[in-house]
Amino acid sequence: MTVEQFATRHIGPGPDDERRMLEVVGHGSIDELMDAAIPEVIRWHGTLDLPDPATEAQAIAELRALAARNTVAVSMIGLGYHGTHTPAVIRRNVLEDPAWYTAYTPYQPEISQGRLEALLNFQTMVTDLTGLATANASMLDEGTAAAEAMTLARRASKSKSAVYVVDADALPQTIAVITSRAEPLGIEVRVLDVERDELPGEFFGLHLQYPGASGAVRDHAALVEAAHAVGALVTVAADLLALTLLRAPGEIGADIAAGTTQRFGVPMGFGGPHAGYLAVRAGLERMLPGRLVGVSRDADGNPAYRLALQTREQHIRREKATSNICTAQVLLAVMAGMYAVYHGPDGLRDIAARTHGMAARLAAGLRAGGVHVPDVAFFDTVTATVPGRAAEVVAAAADRGVNLRLVDADRVGVSCDETTTVEHLAAVWAAFGVPTFDGDVDPALPTGLARTSDFLTHPVFRSHHSETAMLRYLRRLSDFDYALDRGMIPLGSCTMKLNATTEMEPISWAEFAHIHPFAPDAQTAGYREMIGQLESWLAEVTGYDAVSVQPNAGSQGELAGLLAIRAWHRSRGEAHRDVCLIPSSAHGTNAASAVMAGMRVVVVACDDDGNVDLVDLDAKIEKHRDALAAIMVTYPSTHGVYETGIASLCAKVHDAGGQVYVDGANLNALVGFAKPGKFGADVSHLNLHKTFCIPHGGGGPGVGPVAVRAHLAPFLPGDPLGVHVDATPAISAARYGSAGILPIPWAYLRMMGAAGLTRATGVAVLAANYVAARLRGHFPVLYAGNKGLVAHECILDLRPLTKATGVSVDDVAKRLIDYGFHAPTMSFPVAGTLMVEPTESEDLAELDRFCDAMIAIRAEIEQVGSGQWPAGDNPLANAPHTAAMVSGDQWSHPYPRSVGAYPAGVDRAGKYWPPVRRIDGAYGDRNLVCSCPSPEAFED
Amino acid sequence: MTVEQFATRHIGPGPDDERRMLEVVGHGSIDELMDAAIPEVIRWHGTLDLPDPATEAQAIAELRALAARNTVAVSMIGLGYHGTHTPAVIRRNVLEDPAWYTAYTPYQPEISQGRLEALLNFQTMVTDLTGLATANASMLDEGTAAAEAMTLARRASKSKSAVYVVDADALPQTIAVITSRAEPLGIEVRVLDVERDELPGEFFGLHLQYPGASGAVRDHAALVEAAHAVGALVTVAADLLALTLLRAPGEIGADIAAGTTQRFGVPMGFGGPHAGYLAVRAGLERMLPGRLVGVSRDADGNPAYRLALQTREQHIRREKATSNICTAQVLLAVMAGMYAVYHGPDGLRDIAARTHGMAARLAAGLRAGGVHVPDVAFFDTVTATVPGRAAEVVAAAADRGVNLRLVDADRVGVSCDETTTVEHLAAVWAAFGVPTFDGDVDPALPTGLARTSDFLTHPVFRSHHSETAMLRYLRRLSDFDYALDRGMIPLGSCTMKLNATTEMEPISWAEFAHIHPFAPDAQTAGYREMIGQLESWLAEVTGYDAVSVQPNAGSQGELAGLLAIRAWHRSRGEAHRDVCLIPSSAHGTNAASAVMAGMRVVVVACDDDGNVDLVDLDAKIEKHRDALAAIMVTYPSTHGVYETGIASLCAKVHDAGGQVYVDGANLNALVGFAKPGKFGADVSHLNLHKTFCIPHGGGGPGVGPVAVRAHLAPFLPGDPLGVHVDATPAISAARYGSAGILPIPWAYLRMMGAAGLTRATGVAVLAANYVAARLRGHFPVLYAGNKGLVAHECILDLRPLTKATGVSVDDVAKRLIDYGFHAPTMSFPVAGTLMVEPTESEDLAELDRFCDAMIAIRAEIEQVGSGQWPAGDNPLANAPHTAAMVSGDQWSHPYPRSVGAYPAGVDRAGKYWPPVRRIDGAYGDRNLVCSCPSPEAFED
Repeated sequence: MTVEQFATRHIGPGPDDERRMLEVVGHGSIDELMDAAIPEVIRWHGTLDLPDPATEAQAIAELRALAARNTVAVSMIGLGYHGTHTPAVIRRNVLEDPAWYTAYTPYQPEISQGRLEALLNFQTMVTDLTGLATANASMLDEGTAAAEAMTLARRASKSKSAVYVVDADALPQTIAVITSRAEPLGIEVRVLDVERDELPGEFFGLHLQYPGASGAVRDHAALVEAAHAVGALVTVAADLLALTLLRAPGEIGADIAAGTTQRFGVPMGFGGPHAGYLAVRAGLERMLPGRLVGVSRDADGNPAYRLALQTREQHIRREKATSNICTAQVLLAVMAGMYAVYHGPDGLRDIAARTHGMAARLAAGLRAGGVHVPDVAFFDTVTATVPGRAAEVVAAAADRGVNLRLVDADRVGVSCDETTTVEHLAAVWAAFGVPTFDGDVDPALPTGLARTSDFLTHPVFRSHHSETAMLRYLRRLSDFDYALDRGMIPLGSCTMKLNATTEMEPISWAEFAHIHPFAPDAQTAGYREMIGQLESWLAEVTGYDAVSVQPNAGSQGELAGLLAIRAWHRSRGEAHRDVCLIPSSAHGTNAASAVMAGMRVVVVACDDDGNVDLVDLDAKIEKHRDALAAIMVTYPSTHGVYETGIASLCAKVHDAGGQVYVDGANLNALVGFAKPGKFGADVSHLNLHKTFCIPHGGGGPGVGPVAVRAHLAPFLPGDPLGVHVDATPAISAARYGSAGILPIPWAYLRMMGAAGLTRATGVAVLAANYVAARLRGHFPVLYAGNKGLVAHECILDLRPLTKATGVSVDDVAKRLIDYGFHAPTMSFPVAGTLMVEPTESEDLAELDRFCDAMIAIRAEIEQVGSGQWPAGDNPLANAPHTAAMVSGDQWSHPYPRSVGAYPAGVDRAGKYWPPVRRIDGAYGDRNLVCSCPSPEAFED
Repeated sequence: MTVEQFATRHIGPGPDDERRMLEVVGHGSIDELMDAAIPEVIRWHGTLDLPDPATEAQAIAELRALAARNTVAVSMIGLGYHGTHTPAVIRRNVLEDPAWYTAYTPYQPEISQGRLEALLNFQTMVTDLTGLATANASMLDEGTAAAEAMTLARRASKSKSAVYVVDADALPQTIAVITSRAEPLGIEVRVLDVERDELPGEFFGLHLQYPGASGAVRDHAALVEAAHAVGALVTVAADLLALTLLRAPGEIGADIAAGTTQRFGVPMGFGGPHAGYLAVRAGLERMLPGRLVGVSRDADGNPAYRLALQTREQHIRREKATSNICTAQVLLAVMAGMYAVYHGPDGLRDIAARTHGMAARLAAGLRAGGVHVPDVAFFDTVTATVPGRAAEVVAAAADRGVNLRLVDADRVGVSCDETTTVEHLAAVWAAFGVPTFDGDVDPALPTGLARTSDFLTHPVFRSHHSETAMLRYLRRLSDFDYALDRGMIPLGSCTMKLNATTEMEPISWAEFAHIHPFAPDAQTAGYREMIGQLESWLAEVTGYDAVSVQPNAGSQGELAGLLAIRAWHRSRGEAHRDVCLIPSSAHGTNAASAVMAGMRVVVVACDDDGNVDLVDLDAKIEKHRDALAAIMVTYPSTHGVYETGIASLCAKVHDAGGQVYVDGANLNALVGFAKPGKFGADVSHLNLHKTFCIPHGGGGPGVGPVAVRAHLAPFLPGDPLGVHVDATPAISAARYGSAGILPIPWAYLRMMGAAGLTRATGVAVLAANYVAARLRGHFPVLYAGNKGLVAHECILDLRPLTKATGVSVDDVAKRLIDYGFHAPTMSFPVAGTLMVEPTESEDLAELDRFCDAMIAIRAEIEQVGSGQWPAGDNPLANAPHTAAMVSGDQWSHPYPRSVGAYPAGVDRAGKYWPPVRRIDGAYGDRNLVCSCPSPEAFED
């Protein structure tokens, strides 16, 4: 390969590295290694049918050509997606900064304080604006947030009713997602005109939109009271910008608020990604799904941030789960939170007032021109009545470069935002055929609902309003964190590979960033062609026949896949098939998704080698033969092994009439060497943020497309604006989910080509086996397949050492920070172990640095075991060491400061220092604080 | 002002801050303060005639519209400007990363190790490829580098001759710059066809181009020998990419090599900026102009980088100066060096071979089609002979989107580069009217000149070839440095204000980045309109009648301004006027520029208040009345004071027939309140990298436009391709200098508008007076003007303290690092002082943090003075403290570690740690090492 080929940049080890690694692993070539590692029964020997790899320049040129086929119109469609000015300082120093976007989920809080603080800002922003007690660290979008609010209401409500009432003025895509989620759970959704229709006698929850999709701002207080009277909970789906001027949901008695923060500086991206939000009143916080950042304290007693109530999420309660959410939209939540930090309360109010002023002027102009605008209060959106002329008006506006909302044949919706100008209004007036208006305008907000309460009172929202101050705040926070730009993040099952700049750059382009998800198809030809290509390439790579990119997280892909299986059984008159077999080693999400898809979970045992126990499988199949809907397995297994029994497993399940779901989390071990769609699976979800280079963004965005064989294709997710719940459910609010970041996997596939992808897989497997080979003598490596080989990751067993010395897996993980590493995955899938996935992007120098660190730590454990260092006071127990600690005036530990600070091999000048010492997790859960603590808390 | 207005983002202090600062300063409003501070005699009371301020979104939209009027063609013009692929990882993490671009010149080496290492890579790359001993840290462009080579040759040559011989196949713009520089210095330039014409009997230097502008690669060994025989030095202007395949200049005996590194990943930018280079053989290193990075050692004896032989530059030898260069192109040199790091020697050879292969194929196709291509060896450029048809061929190519070089009526030049594709060749063939060629092609490089020596053998060029490795290397280096993204850089005279992201983003756009400086005017309408607007706005701001943006550094602006004065005198038959008066307080560059403009420097004394001594001025004018050409003064003075005598000074000089040059370095104290062009000056240069927001880039790029009154307008710099040395000299190689970064000041001016600019000046002056007021009780503030007020900066006098305690200004500067600051300007304009310029972009919190630190340091000095801490071992003498030092196992200092590490007010968690301790400057100069040291040097 030459310098031009992207694969040589993506893949860390060069030819010399590769030779050395093969020597250690004991194989002559990568081909030979892969022949030995992968069971022949699943092996695919073809060459992927993908276009010849493009250079970086070629890929950019092709994406430019695709982008040029999208039209960036002025978007006044509204419906939860608005034009917004991303402050350039935030775009450059968050969205385009690898220190933010290559970070992992903050499970290691000591090295994630920056994004945890940013998320706490986000949570504080949401709680302040909604007037509720607790908000989580973001949801996938407004639609799924509203669906989660529904299930939360059901858990919390004392009502026995299965009825959920939804405001007819809710966003149509929200209604679609809620309905799709409700059906398998046996919830009956009733869409009512809540202003006019009578509420049912019993219902467990009520969903209101505030302001409504029509733009109308209504006082919901009486409805809230009526709902509470029958024991129902009330969710208010509220626009945060409007809430700077309007009474907060918490102030009218809402139990839950849900919505989106897109218009807080996050581009529309043809639907996503952006951060949804979910907030609850006091008393419901422990039912809140998703991630929640809280304040705890470190070993010195200083305040420190962490994910609170983490057990809710990391180990989702399997069969009893009510949500499968296990990711957030961290990068976008950081952006939205920083938008609030940068503008502050006065700035946000200014933006809201300006936006409202535009809408009020628009309405005044329409009325002055004789167009009927119903006499309701509104914030940013006006629905005008033009009997029989709506399509014509919308078309006339489109001709002027402005997209409006075609409500029906008689009504047109027009939504203003912070980017709206008087020139835009003039275009709209012209489209309606009315003259330009420049008279005086009265506000159209209901005075009775005017906000009187303060918000964003914390100093963080009042201190960073100059660009200089903002820039430094962003730098300070990102410096706290450890991301891929500092070193390896060897997380098993998470595939923390390179997120190449060339893959990332196009997502900032206006032609991808500033497209409304409901823009007319004629304006999105480039997007749709790109998505079509991506889907077809993903199908080729996985061996499936059809792919949908709609699911905006892996968990959503699981749900979509299982719903497809469910719909297929029903289409064949086998609605009774509802048992989903899940091996005991599976990720908790699998079971949760099955429950959400209306299935019963039956666990299949694993044998001592971590493989599915085929005897138990036979027994379970036999027992549930008639009800068998599916089996969900991960391949290679969550133990990082190519199980040889997979083909036989597939056959057995098919024989019993079930479908096979292969979780694609570990696809990085298969690409180019095996195709799930060809070795027996019917459906998989993929993780574009694992195998296909979408960055983890500090805990999201994820993209989890679902891939199926042809018989399941009719049951893939549908367009949320034209959904058929039984067959094509709405999995997320937008047709193509997080479309805005799909250029990333597109570019990766386009630049790697068949040879590059295949080589990447080979090097990833080589790297894992190299680490296993180097560390096997120091830590037992759990599980192996053919010829003692692992797949793309390996599990280091610390249990014997822990038993002998008291040094825990946690101690080792934290000690790795002192050595300059992010810890591997802890205690998954086996408690007391570390799972290491090096990926193909790490070169030999970095792999060796990691192995050397692990070997040095092994020697340190020895010193604890031998009693040289006491169990409670040693470099492992005290890890991580902060600069403040090792430079303290007192030092009373039984090892020198240099051992704490600079263990062997550490780059002294460039050392990464964590900002806090080890964090006390239990304390934080006991004393739940989930919004910004006062500055005094941080005083020395 | 509302949240939308950019000025509120650019200016740090908000209304509350401003009130508090005014209280401390003792004035009721900024207007009142400015009325008091600025002498009425220079005060201008109008409102700047600028367009109403645009919001950030509007400014971007307008720049997009201008950019759309440029045409990005395939550039095959060559002549030292080539298409290149900037590796995306370098673009994003250097060019677009504030940690790199907001850094200052590395005068404080302990907090500049990152960019110093990057510059050492650059120097090593240049010395390796040219085969010479020492290269500096970059020049402004190839033309000025060649001119500097000429004057260097004159200094070093033993020949008494004033003749400089220049290869006729040199780049035409290089010839123009050399000739323009030669004339005032009395050097006679002879342009000869060195292959055919006879060399003169005596000459002091010879300039050769390798390969030539025509593309021809010739063996220059015999010419070098002939030049050496008469005592002349030889400069080879060499293409570094070609040198990966061709014998190095040093290997054929060249004394000097000069050129550009633009094609190493730096976009053409319509002419700049990019890094020129200059390298010399052993023995000439101490004559090298510009900046030179060398290796020294820190207080622990560890290797550490610094600017070597700094006295050459910081305090240019005034009247004896032979160069006025005092900046480099650091940001671009970093990019070019990193391009070499990323590609490595094999990658560069690949790129060169591919480029050559394209050129060879191109020639073969032309010949096969019957076009005459002279039978010479070439690397990337082919000159084809098409009698009478050249213009037609060039036009035909332009129609196909390809720019070729019109050499003359009969010849067309075609230059290939790493971006050239076979499609481009096909377009060229079509333009020549010959068929597409796909036969076999032989290389056209002369075998006798094939490179046999190794290059880039240092491990740094062999370790960062994956994007992951490169990203981490860039992050590691940038983490070493302190830039504006961490905190204040209160440098007197350097105006380290915000470099806003919105100003920076457009420079990455293809329509600005990928334009050749010699592209046809029809393709650059947007650029030229933008430049025209910028020039007119700068004229309005300064009160002058005409502006040229060609000078690509302040020093070049000075030269251009003085040359304009010189040409004006000559045009009036007063060629004998050659005396330039310069106050003793002036920056060294002023005198150096005067010498280069062929003037004699006469120094005028300053009085005790730092003002120009008007009595001495009268005396000097009287003495030199008939020969008086000009006076150069800085206003406000380099002492940071609004001198009241300025108007009278201007009148006196004018009365004597002289011209007044006002150095615009301190324009940040005038904008909106006074206009040099209106209070008596005839010419100024501006520093767009000071007052107008071009970032300092770690030591360049600078842009130094020259602004003149109408009578001098005819003598502004001319187009280097059509230069008239006597009147319109070529100051830099490209007509608009560093055009590629002019969107930055354009955006600043466009977004600030009259009110914003005026307010910025007021706040800058308020901030300086606030700092002076807070610190006056702790350190004497030297110099003040009206009512005890300073202008935009203040000088803190440490001399009494130094005398009393031995604590030096250096100790205080280094101690400020421990407090988290970049030091102010040290010992300029007065030895033993610190000059502080806070600028308008720092908010009150940061100003107070600085004042608090200075007051705390004052108390620390007290403790040394009182004998509590010994003179040689105290927190000041030992500053800066590294993390390794304060966490060392041993601590023998008479103060606690915490005092060293965390003095009062320091943010413990976010503390910036310098990577090295105090650096021994003298050691580095004595033991000059100016290329990458071996890795062993860094072993513990």
